[in-house]
Amino acid sequence: MSATIPTQFTGQAAMSKQNEEKFDLKEHSYTPRAFNEDDVIIKIECCGVCGSDLHTITCGWQAHDNFPAIVGHEIIGTVERAGANTTHKVGDRVGFGAQCSSCGECSSCKAGQENYCLKGMGGTYQGKTGDKVQPYTQGGYADYYQGPGHFAVPIPAELESAVAAPMLCAGGTVYAPLVRYGAGPGKKVGIIGIGGLGHLGVQFSAALGADTFAISHSDSKRADAEKLGAKGFVATKDAKTALAEHAATFDLIVCTSFQEGMPLQELYLPLLKPFGNMVIVGIPNSGIPAPGWAVLGKSITGSLIASPSELTEMYALAVAKGVRTWVETRPMSEATQTLQDMHEGKAKFRYVLVN
Amino acid sequence: MSATIPTQFTGQAAMSKQNEEKFDLKEHSYTPRAFNEDDVIIKIECCGVCGSDLHTITCGWQAHDNFPAIVGHEIIGTVERAGANTTHKVGDRVGFGAQCSSCGECSSCKAGQENYCLKGMGGTYQGKTGDKVQPYTQGGYADYYQGPGHFAVPIPAELESAVAAPMLCAGGTVYAPLVRYGAGPGKKVGIIGIGGLGHLGVQFSAALGADTFAISHSDSKRADAEKLGAKGFVATKDAKTALAEHAATFDLIVCTSFQEGMPLQELYLPLLKPFGNMVIVGIPNSGIPAPGWAVLGKSITGSLIASPSELTEMYALAVAKGVRTWVETRPMSEATQTLQDMHEGKAKFRYVLVN
Repeated sequence: MSATIPTQFTGQAAMSKQNEEKFDLKEHSYTPRAFNEDDVIIKIECCGVCGSDLHTITCGWQAHDNFPAIVGHEIIGTVERAGANTTHKVGDRVGFGAQCSSCGECSSCKAGQENYCLKGMGGTYQGKTGDKVQPYTQGGYADYYQGPGHFAVPIPAELESAVAAPMLCAGGTVYAPLVRYGAGPGKKVGIIGIGGLGHLGVQFSAALGADTFAISHSDSKRADAEKLGAKGFVATKDAKTALAEHAATFDLIVCTSFQEGMPLQELYLPLLKPFGNMVIVGIPNSGIPAPGWAVLGKSITGSLIASPSELTEMYALAVAKGVRTWVETRPMSEATQTLQDMHEGKAKFRYVLVN
Repeated sequence: MSATIPTQFTGQAAMSKQNEEKFDLKEHSYTPRAFNEDDVIIKIECCGVCGSDLHTITCGWQAHDNFPAIVGHEIIGTVERAGANTTHKVGDRVGFGAQCSSCGECSSCKAGQENYCLKGMGGTYQGKTGDKVQPYTQGGYADYYQGPGHFAVPIPAELESAVAAPMLCAGGTVYAPLVRYGAGPGKKVGIIGIGGLGHLGVQFSAALGADTFAISHSDSKRADAEKLGAKGFVATKDAKTALAEHAATFDLIVCTSFQEGMPLQELYLPLLKPFGNMVIVGIPNSGIPAPGWAVLGKSITGSLIASPSELTEMYALAVAKGVRTWVETRPMSEATQTLQDMHEGKAKFRYVLVN
């Protein structure tokens, strides 16, 4: 082992369940599980701040007792130790996204769709380790990360780390369904929600050659959407006008802001062509607010992050077509304030914590 | 005009909204809208009884005032008058399914997907005619039917009329999504509900070469499912066993019995492979009983009947592979009792009214 790798890793941890009105992270050190030859250890350069981080430490999805919790799953760093079974070598710059384990044996894993592992995917943080000392994984708001080399994605030299980091979760989450459902030349694609995910969705859709429309509540994001490469803009607050111009014309809509009360039946599904797909990304707890007949000739689909091979393809496209995350960097030591700002919707469009 | 075609057509009509506890149809004559050269008039040989017929005359989907109402949209008969613009000739045996008009101009119509006409499809009965005397179409529980030749599908000589009739709605409704979503060799397909639609779904899926499983509440339909060509049977009342044997193995599930309380989230979606499709057929008013996360990596899709070209392909497959509707024929004069028996679930699996 490199002499520089400490035996304990240190990060900014939620010591107990956080109140989203007032976040409070503390420095915390932990001993990682035993290294094995499938692993790599990276020295973390930076880590993007994802909405999942907030949901996890506020127990917004579900209650859990895995505290102290170091979150962060858009991690980029330099390999300081590479297991013999990995394809990486010391000095490589790699990234870990939201997934760091899968069974490796099921049909999904064998098909390179590890994110749909039939045994369930293991998280980069809060994933089970089987280790007594550190029974769940800790994430990237830290100095080091250890994980399976299989889930460490090479970062192309053309991309700055801070720009590349958010693509590991936010980018892959929108890229994968765009490709899977055929975004490309001659296709009309809508991206609902212009935020951390959506601003990358608009860029990747345009990069794939699709006629890309930003779909957002009001006109406030119109100028940004144009800069991102959108051909057009659909304001949903005036559904009548939106339908008059765009009813039954979209091949694919990727919804990055699935929520209660969204106009799924009234607007989003009617915007789709026959056999069009509406893809929900993320992990919405909300019900699907539509009766069965609303999906006649339409599809509602969910999509969850991206596999390592999809992330590698995504980076190649980002390099080729100039896709760039819009980021604001902050020192890792300011993680608490950054979470607060993220919660208050101040990100435009993604924060990245830098060591 | 043939001397044998009466100026008024006569059928078994619901004179007012029906009570599903006690149906009561009466003989009723009406004057069809003016004939044009796109039309054909057929002398009706038989007409299948569809669940839609009951919903329409009980106002089960929505209240309406279009009474007297002659229903029936699985109509087979012989052409007695053929408009100059049609491809049919007097003496041809043809069938009218659930659709008898579309705009003909939109992208769906031009693509041979008239059932997804962007201007809306017109019903074989209860469709708007633009005629003052008979402002809505009347259906096939009658002696004659007049409709556009474009929607009159040739019936292959190998199929008896009573067997072919229910395929015009029930058959096409299951056939179209099976083909659209790739049922074929190497694919595992489930058909939920073994009734009028489902018993044809099992047969068409098997005819397309898919490994076909009947999915039904209890074992009561198991023997029938085997006769229909199912390779296996999944009893949903024991979800635990069903999941132990079949979780994440189905490529496609066609649900012919979408209803409140069905185990969509608990069983049906978990039965699908990643990227698998669950297709709802029919026009369910029920909501979609699942949270957004339940569709992660899965699709929920709706499908509505079949286009004329799909019906023609369906009949060719039925002839080639021996698909046959299981029917019980009744005299047209017994339409009232037949509706009653249909409502009470006595059909096994489809009634056909014969003149």
